[in-house]
Amino acid sequence: MALEKKVEQLISLNLDIRKIGEPLFDSPIRLSEDNDDSIFVPDNEKVLSVIDTSIIEELNKQGQPVPAFEKAGPRKKLYFKPGKAVSAVITCGGLCPGLNSVIRAIVMMNYYRYEKQITYGARFGYAGLVKEIGHEIELLTVDDVSPIHTQGGTILGSSRGNQDPIKMVDRLQELGINILYTVGGDGTQKGAMAIIKEIEKRNLDIAVIGIPKTIDNDINFIDKSFGVETAFSEACESIHSGHTEAEAAYNGIGLVKLMGRESGFVAANAVLATGEANFCLIPELEFELDGDKGLLKQLENRLLRKNHAVIVVAEGAGQKYVTNPEKPEFDASGNHKLGDIGLFLKDQVTRYFKERNIPIALRYIDPSYNIRSCAPTPNDSIFCFQLAQMAVHAGMSGRTNMVVGYINGQFTHLPMEVATSKRKKIDLKSQLWQSVLEATGQPISFKS
Amino acid sequence: MALEKKVEQLISLNLDIRKIGEPLFDSPIRLSEDNDDSIFVPDNEKVLSVIDTSIIEELNKQGQPVPAFEKAGPRKKLYFKPGKAVSAVITCGGLCPGLNSVIRAIVMMNYYRYEKQITYGARFGYAGLVKEIGHEIELLTVDDVSPIHTQGGTILGSSRGNQDPIKMVDRLQELGINILYTVGGDGTQKGAMAIIKEIEKRNLDIAVIGIPKTIDNDINFIDKSFGVETAFSEACESIHSGHTEAEAAYNGIGLVKLMGRESGFVAANAVLATGEANFCLIPELEFELDGDKGLLKQLENRLLRKNHAVIVVAEGAGQKYVTNPEKPEFDASGNHKLGDIGLFLKDQVTRYFKERNIPIALRYIDPSYNIRSCAPTPNDSIFCFQLAQMAVHAGMSGRTNMVVGYINGQFTHLPMEVATSKRKKIDLKSQLWQSVLEATGQPISFKS
Amino acid sequence: MALEKKVEQLISLNLDIRKIGEPLFDSPIRLSEDNDDSIFVPDNEKVLSVIDTSIIEELNKQGQPVPAFEKAGPRKKLYFKPGKAVSAVITCGGLCPGLNSVIRAIVMMNYYRYEKQITYGARFGYAGLVKEIGHEIELLTVDDVSPIHTQGGTILGSSRGNQDPIKMVDRLQELGINILYTVGGDGTQKGAMAIIKEIEKRNLDIAVIGIPKTIDNDINFIDKSFGVETAFSEACESIHSGHTEAEAAYNGIGLVKLMGRESGFVAANAVLATGEANFCLIPELEFELDGDKGLLKQLENRLLRKNHAVIVVAEGAGQKYVTNPEKPEFDASGNHKLGDIGLFLKDQVTRYFKERNIPIALRYIDPSYNIRSCAPTPNDSIFCFQLAQMAVHAGMSGRTNMVVGYINGQFTHLPMEVATSKRKKIDLKSQLWQSVLEATGQPISFKS
Amino acid sequence: MALEKKVEQLISLNLDIRKIGEPLFDSPIRLSEDNDDSIFVPDNEKVLSVIDTSIIEELNKQGQPVPAFEKAGPRKKLYFKPGKAVSAVITCGGLCPGLNSVIRAIVMMNYYRYEKQITYGARFGYAGLVKEIGHEIELLTVDDVSPIHTQGGTILGSSRGNQDPIKMVDRLQELGINILYTVGGDGTQKGAMAIIKEIEKRNLDIAVIGIPKTIDNDINFIDKSFGVETAFSEACESIHSGHTEAEAAYNGIGLVKLMGRESGFVAANAVLATGEANFCLIPELEFELDGDKGLLKQLENRLLRKNHAVIVVAEGAGQKYVTNPEKPEFDASGNHKLGDIGLFLKDQVTRYFKERNIPIALRYIDPSYNIRSCAPTPNDSIFCFQLAQMAVHAGMSGRTNMVVGYINGQFTHLPMEVATSKRKKIDLKSQLWQSVLEATGQPISFKS
Repeated sequence: MALEKKVEQLISLNLDIRKIGEPLFDSPIRLSEDNDDSIFVPDNEKVLSVIDTSIIEELNKQGQPVPAFEKAGPRKKLYFKPGKAVSAVITCGGLCPGLNSVIRAIVMMNYYRYEKQITYGARFGYAGLVKEIGHEIELLTVDDVSPIHTQGGTILGSSRGNQDPIKMVDRLQELGINILYTVGGDGTQKGAMAIIKEIEKRNLDIAVIGIPKTIDNDINFIDKSFGVETAFSEACESIHSGHTEAEAAYNGIGLVKLMGRESGFVAANAVLATGEANFCLIPELEFELDGDKGLLKQLENRLLRKNHAVIVVAEGAGQKYVTNPEKPEFDASGNHKLGDIGLFLKDQVTRYFKERNIPIALRYIDPSYNIRSCAPTPNDSIFCFQLAQMAVHAGMSGRTNMVVGYINGQFTHLPMEVATSKRKKIDLKSQLWQSVLEATGQPISFKS
Repeated sequence: MALEKKVEQLISLNLDIRKIGEPLFDSPIRLSEDNDDSIFVPDNEKVLSVIDTSIIEELNKQGQPVPAFEKAGPRKKLYFKPGKAVSAVITCGGLCPGLNSVIRAIVMMNYYRYEKQITYGARFGYAGLVKEIGHEIELLTVDDVSPIHTQGGTILGSSRGNQDPIKMVDRLQELGINILYTVGGDGTQKGAMAIIKEIEKRNLDIAVIGIPKTIDNDINFIDKSFGVETAFSEACESIHSGHTEAEAAYNGIGLVKLMGRESGFVAANAVLATGEANFCLIPELEFELDGDKGLLKQLENRLLRKNHAVIVVAEGAGQKYVTNPEKPEFDASGNHKLGDIGLFLKDQVTRYFKERNIPIALRYIDPSYNIRSCAPTPNDSIFCFQLAQMAVHAGMSGRTNMVVGYINGQFTHLPMEVATSKRKKIDLKSQLWQSVLEATGQPISFKS
Repeated sequence: MALEKKVEQLISLNLDIRKIGEPLFDSPIRLSEDNDDSIFVPDNEKVLSVIDTSIIEELNKQGQPVPAFEKAGPRKKLYFKPGKAVSAVITCGGLCPGLNSVIRAIVMMNYYRYEKQITYGARFGYAGLVKEIGHEIELLTVDDVSPIHTQGGTILGSSRGNQDPIKMVDRLQELGINILYTVGGDGTQKGAMAIIKEIEKRNLDIAVIGIPKTIDNDINFIDKSFGVETAFSEACESIHSGHTEAEAAYNGIGLVKLMGRESGFVAANAVLATGEANFCLIPELEFELDGDKGLLKQLENRLLRKNHAVIVVAEGAGQKYVTNPEKPEFDASGNHKLGDIGLFLKDQVTRYFKERNIPIALRYIDPSYNIRSCAPTPNDSIFCFQLAQMAVHAGMSGRTNMVVGYINGQFTHLPMEVATSKRKKIDLKSQLWQSVLEATGQPISFKS
Repeated sequence: MALEKKVEQLISLNLDIRKIGEPLFDSPIRLSEDNDDSIFVPDNEKVLSVIDTSIIEELNKQGQPVPAFEKAGPRKKLYFKPGKAVSAVITCGGLCPGLNSVIRAIVMMNYYRYEKQITYGARFGYAGLVKEIGHEIELLTVDDVSPIHTQGGTILGSSRGNQDPIKMVDRLQELGINILYTVGGDGTQKGAMAIIKEIEKRNLDIAVIGIPKTIDNDINFIDKSFGVETAFSEACESIHSGHTEAEAAYNGIGLVKLMGRESGFVAANAVLATGEANFCLIPELEFELDGDKGLLKQLENRLLRKNHAVIVVAEGAGQKYVTNPEKPEFDASGNHKLGDIGLFLKDQVTRYFKERNIPIALRYIDPSYNIRSCAPTPNDSIFCFQLAQMAVHAGMSGRTNMVVGYINGQFTHLPMEVATSKRKKIDLKSQLWQSVLEATGQPISFKS
């Protein structure tokens, strides 16, 4: 069943990457004659989207090819003349560790590998591309960006929401931009597609390359997003605080809310890394509060056995309790506004034990800004560096309407439509979630 | 004026330390014949409470002696027979970095320096001394406590509130305890005085030594309390997060709530260490929200100039806005319940700019449990170690009804009455606060 | 060419995994009826060893199948009866971050997922399996191992070198061990193969599963080894120190020696993550000291331009300068003894500039023990956890003579012979190395 | 005896501070009318140098006054006209955590509190004051220095050794410098005194204020030097590495060399903070290697009991073994060149156990550059900030030939002659050393 579903999903995929024109110029990045052509990725090189033989066999059986992504990397022939293409970068949406590493790498690549090309930074997301709003465009030099990869945040600033594509393309034209790099999530890449539409209407020579950002790690066909490792690493400290507090009180309960709007990757990984949580609640897992198998009763059982407990909850979990599905609300980025499941659980747990006259000491911890604003781990920093390299190689080759992906250990080109089509979620049958069950000792379900 | 007030306060001090009996036994801590008596502190050694010559001259002028504290340290003659005294430790109130270091050092001192003496740990604060509540008393071995100084929290657990002195002294008698170490704040030491009263009523041979704990650093005549340095060091990360978030948004505001019920030492020091805050609000500083010199207008001015701002507020600041002085509420430790100034400011700032149609992006950060549950810095760890050493030396010498203090760079003996009499606060004319004014650039007052 | 070589290498691979017998028992890890069989990995499931379409096409052209590894994971049918199999773990060779996480996860898996099975820990590597040496075997409980994943080192201790397989199998028999987990490098797994030979000679029911350990990340067909990420993350601090020192002196040179006996992964990644090194020397890269294109002249050029420089050198680089190929020496693990390239470079650089009368300030930093003894990063900790899970699943299924691998983002079963056959090295044409060239600005070669 | 010696030392002290002229200008730092004069330190305010009543009584008995230091802080009347005085800063000698915090605070003070005064930075220590050497003088703006307190090293660069005072004063005159801040150790302040002599010869209006730097914490009458806390905090990691390595091997020995040329404060504090060392060797402690009570035999005894050991040795310990007293060597700063006691001990320990056929695994760790190049802890950062504030207040008041001190919890003015006259050392009878004995369990002496 699961297999059939996966196969079906794969068959329908269109993984072709759009180009604004045929490449003509020789790449300058061979660096010296000592390097041969094997440092370039041939244009027809692809990487398989699946490597499990059972799925491949099923595709074969159905007479379907195994879908494959264009492999990312430097191209021998470029569309833009090296040294001449002008780039712009924007960072959009909420903070995510590694934004500065991405900005830095784009500037470095343009300068050092593509013959001292210019990179502009537009400030505060798409707002920076609308002249009327009035933010200055900044010329980013190598010296400006040299030390920024060790800092959290984004030197360009960010904002939520899209802007009028007409005004933004006006601005790109005025500035003579050839390649626009859009660092942001789902909404940002949808905004990029609107820009591309306008570019095509005007028949302009501008490529748009997305660098997908999601601290929730929930982009389809992308195994790992930048900043995610940093986020769950940092989240470990909050779980550890919750655990320390819980252990220090009789019937102490540490309740930790982590990010994860529609997917619980940060929560699940932080729980695995610490081994200190007893309950992990994520958007993918439906749970009941009440009843014999409900969360509150399970929590009571845990306290009876051990006199302390730690609960980790992703912000998007249990939304049925805290939002009205008939009146959904949205933020400036077009995301559903979530109800506050953390405070709701805090109240419910408090009420439950008060009714039963069981003294507890509940500590509620919500570290969100601490997590998303911190500097990337070294591993994340390298990942950002490589993502940005791949983006610049793709842009210089004349590709557009794509984001840089990462799957099966390889960087790929992914059409923007595919990247924004649906969310990646934790499969509750996967090794990842089975490990969480084991690490917490929580039941498979909280339902009767 | 300030001088006269200080002098007056000093004159009235009674710094005599009570003893349960005269010391008779030789101390075993000389370790070998290579050490001479100069490692011991003579019983009449004191350290001056003031070192500013202007104050000393004023005292001289008034014919008053300069008050001096008994100096802490190992005594040559002991009241309890080394190797025979049985100790118990309790940790009370909220978590504070370094609790485990204190526990560890008491156990180590008893074992290694006082001839393998036994230390018990009572669980969950004073509750652990009430038999009826049912917590087990734990025998703490050197192996148990050896690695715990690198962990936050307290291996003994803690609780708020006092218990019946009669029941507690019953328990001490039953267990044959000779010295009780009470690690806790104001309320805890008041609880200890009630125990001492009961001990004296029964004429028992039990000493009670306090190790003062206040993450707010607000004990009178104690320059520095354990855990405070760790707390403000850790708080720096939250200010830094607030700053990163604020800079990344147009008109970004980072609002960080830190501990500090009646004194703003943690907030002030964290502000100094980071140099990233623009406003620091502490309990000692009255401020107005509205009006031309009010906080909100000042914040608006700051945004106009720089487009981002960071506010650090101690939890006890601005209580006039969030509590009803006519209906004070109290927690189990007898502390005033504070209103939530952080959320109040968040709402007020949001309202203010909404009314003026100025878009802002406010990020509210409240790291409290992260801060108090973390492991001590190395410097704090040493400080805890020394505090506990001094406590054990004092206990073995037969002193009681005292806490270990630290003033002018020296450890002292401080009567419990003096330690609990009033709170230490930040003098707004002091170098510390003047430096905060300079580091933030905030006005001296927010009042018209 | 490179392609043909890879294809050739792949064709010759034998990836079959040996089993000591057919599985008969039902796995207990379904946890509840809510879980269906999709949580198990079918016994014939494999993952492709290559995903680049060009290589796959070449294999197809030659009529060769694409080699695939057995996929790791829980099996529905087990060889050993759950709850009855007795396990033993050993850790061998030099320290590597994550050893305790691996030990912990094996104990946890045996206890929680395989019905409270027993795990023994043998102390100090293979020495712990030789009765005559006299180390006690330890029964590892869940409580023992619960907090150890946050500590560096190994609670079991380690040692270099193998022991007599006869004596070790005697001991395994005596203790009634069913599954032995050998955590260690190349030499350790070769030792394991000797044990397996002896087991087979005696026709015993004992499985041996390896968990490959190499802080150098140099095992063939394993994309990433545990501890490597932690190692290069930690190494960043030393590079940063070297950089800080170099910048603070006129013609300051920071020279940092990192691990990497035959492969430079740690050095290359740390260089990428910091972006602060100007030269990265690894075993895979031949370099000359002298001559116009030699390292010393290049270093001089760098100093002329910028007045400071940072050199990162892997311990196995430039061995032609510091060892006598005709008289190779070996350590107890059978590894070549390396000459000290760090001190050699220090001397050569000093000499070179002294001869030219150019004042320099060289700071030599060799952090090796700091790096290998530290606690794993959260990401590494999860990786160790999963590796050990896979190992236990494999052991319970009756597999033997294999290690757990990781390739293309998936855990696999890898025959010990394949894992120990040859070293993985950095391809100087790869994106990784090209990125290092870019990040350092160093020339492609140091040869005339 | 010790008492008499202290008294004698105190009696001979000349603590008068020199001024280049009488102050005339009003200080601008009152900030607003809300502040009264109590924020200023009266010119005759002093702080006692001793607070132990026994010493004070002895002084009284001898009819001697208690020596007191001028108290540091802002003065109401200034010698230099606020807004007009031009400052220069230099940083000299080896790196020490906090140098950038000091530079930053001087610039900030000049700009924000003394009416936008200019601060120059001379590069690479005294060399930067010699025109012929050719380093540019940098104008330091508030924006330049704003983020540097979170970085190790010194943005100005440093160098060892003094330069010709005539040339340096020429340069000061040429640049119109009024106040020179010399951040450095013993040698640097002696260099400053030579400059002052030349200034006085020329009768110039230039003040020279020292900010004493010693990572060894060995300046007389200064309780704590900046960077020391950071240094021993960082050193804890190396001791912990040594301990982890030692525990992981049978008869593992971790040998850690720390800084401490003539005083062992960093080693002693790091040993106390970690509680993981078994031997702490410092310059103040004479020790024998051989003989029944010698270090090597004691180490053997320890291994017999516990099978692992950790030795911490300060670089200046045991110099009798590694230097020739008859042929002392000196570095550019005029410091004695030390022999390498770390490598010597490594060799001796190896030899000793080899001779006895006892297998050991010795890990030698020398983290020096890692420690001195790191960023200051928050507490150290505040301390640097305050030191620099006090220095600027002193300079503006017309004081010269002094350094800023810190004693009994207060900042003071200390004549350069006093600061450079002799080294502060660890008293082996002090609480600090007695605590080290207790924490390590090492014998009081290693001599027969």
